[in-house]
Amino acid sequence: MVIEKDDRLILLTNDDGLYAAGLRTLLEVMEEFGKVLLISTTESMSGMSQALTVKIPLRVKLLEENDKHRIYACNGTPTDSVKISVNQLLERTPDWVVSGINHGSNASASVLYSGTMAAAIEGCLYGIDSVGFSLNNSSPTADFSICKKYIRIIMKKLSLKPLPGGICLNVNIPATKKGAIKGIKICRQAKGNWTEEFEKRKDPMGKTYYWLTGVFQNHEPESTDTDEWALTNNFVSVVPVTVDMTAHWYIDELNSRFK
Amino acid sequence: MVIEKDDRLILLTNDDGLYAAGLRTLLEVMEEFGKVLLISTTESMSGMSQALTVKIPLRVKLLEENDKHRIYACNGTPTDSVKISVNQLLERTPDWVVSGINHGSNASASVLYSGTMAAAIEGCLYGIDSVGFSLNNSSPTADFSICKKYIRIIMKKLSLKPLPGGICLNVNIPATKKGAIKGIKICRQAKGNWTEEFEKRKDPMGKTYYWLTGVFQNHEPESTDTDEWALTNNFVSVVPVTVDMTAHWYIDELNSRFK
Repeated sequence: MVIEKDDRLILLTNDDGLYAAGLRTLLEVMEEFGKVLLISTTESMSGMSQALTVKIPLRVKLLEENDKHRIYACNGTPTDSVKISVNQLLERTPDWVVSGINHGSNASASVLYSGTMAAAIEGCLYGIDSVGFSLNNSSPTADFSICKKYIRIIMKKLSLKPLPGGICLNVNIPATKKGAIKGIKICRQAKGNWTEEFEKRKDPMGKTYYWLTGVFQNHEPESTDTDEWALTNNFVSVVPVTVDMTAHWYIDELNSRFK
Repeated sequence: MVIEKDDRLILLTNDDGLYAAGLRTLLEVMEEFGKVLLISTTESMSGMSQALTVKIPLRVKLLEENDKHRIYACNGTPTDSVKISVNQLLERTPDWVVSGINHGSNASASVLYSGTMAAAIEGCLYGIDSVGFSLNNSSPTADFSICKKYIRIIMKKLSLKPLPGGICLNVNIPATKKGAIKGIKICRQAKGNWTEEFEKRKDPMGKTYYWLTGVFQNHEPESTDTDEWALTNNFVSVVPVTVDMTAHWYIDELNSRFK
């Protein structure tokens, strides 16, 4: 793959690994927009959040190259993959960092745990326009093709004007039939968390172990401006996500408490 | 350890592991405030962010118990440790989740990668008053005792009035001599990121590998209201951190772009 000066250069990754159907769908759509460096892991990295690999060295391997894309395997997290691509593998800073399509929703508080969104946030920290895509369907036979139309719309909008610094997009697509999606809705992250989170078992030696599990609780199901509401009501949700975690509105009150 | 109805119940963890000096310092101070369940890993979990352990089961082991504390080892991330404590190990929801004292700063964008802060964010998602403490000193001989005075001040303030829902505190303490700290400053997260992030090496088989490294760049060293400025100028920085990553101010403009 030769990257010309006028080519749009796209860095593509995910957290479900190289063999995930959602990644292949996103690759197809991204090739319509530019030259693609795809980097991912052989194993799933779901729930890895913004984790960094610091105890073992990173390795990358070029698996495939043609006129349109270059595909690398990496042993690190999605965040590592973005870092090593920007710093070592790419001839120049990419124009976009695109992540997904995640197998399952990353709406509400999932943005905090998601490796998919972490890759977008990492791109954003480098000042690159970045988007994470997720399909609200964890089934092994999930149909990612319904996402294509909305990915195209969103990336066309993005190509007209860059995002402000420090903001990336968290896009969640409802799991419904083609044609049943009502459109795109700009949203805020719903308030929510997980409950009943562990399954306790005994191993063959009689020792206790736990599997992480849990049920998501939307704390504000009645609010119509959240990503959870949009998904439940068959809208594609787009949340502008900031890398600035400061609760700015609370600074004055906190100041008065410390006076 | 018997937990009476009137006892303040404190969940304590970190990301530097059970044998970290900062954890022991924080345990000492927390025992002044209540009964402590301490849970951590035998190995360091630095840079694990909000990562969840989903591929292997979690195990916990009670290591030590006396009138003031109970100490558990866990094989999971700081986020897992908080989750399993709240869901499985504790008789009731703790009053505080306290994390640290981290060996090194978690100011600016480090909040996104930090396992220490992830534990506080996890507590916050459960609706528990949560604070992460870090000392801006990565030296193996770092003196954590200088932190005690400020931890006491902050936790006493917290005991007077709970934080609003969805907000926890990111406290960073400058690495300076006792008496040289100028006070506590409420701050916002500085804009910044890492550059020059990899060291490329060859293994004995001649194959390339990379160590993650890097230099932090403060994008706004002149701003006096940031955590980075506070640390550089010998103030303890306190940033109110929100679990809501929505860039609320950008929602209207994003809406107009999608019309």
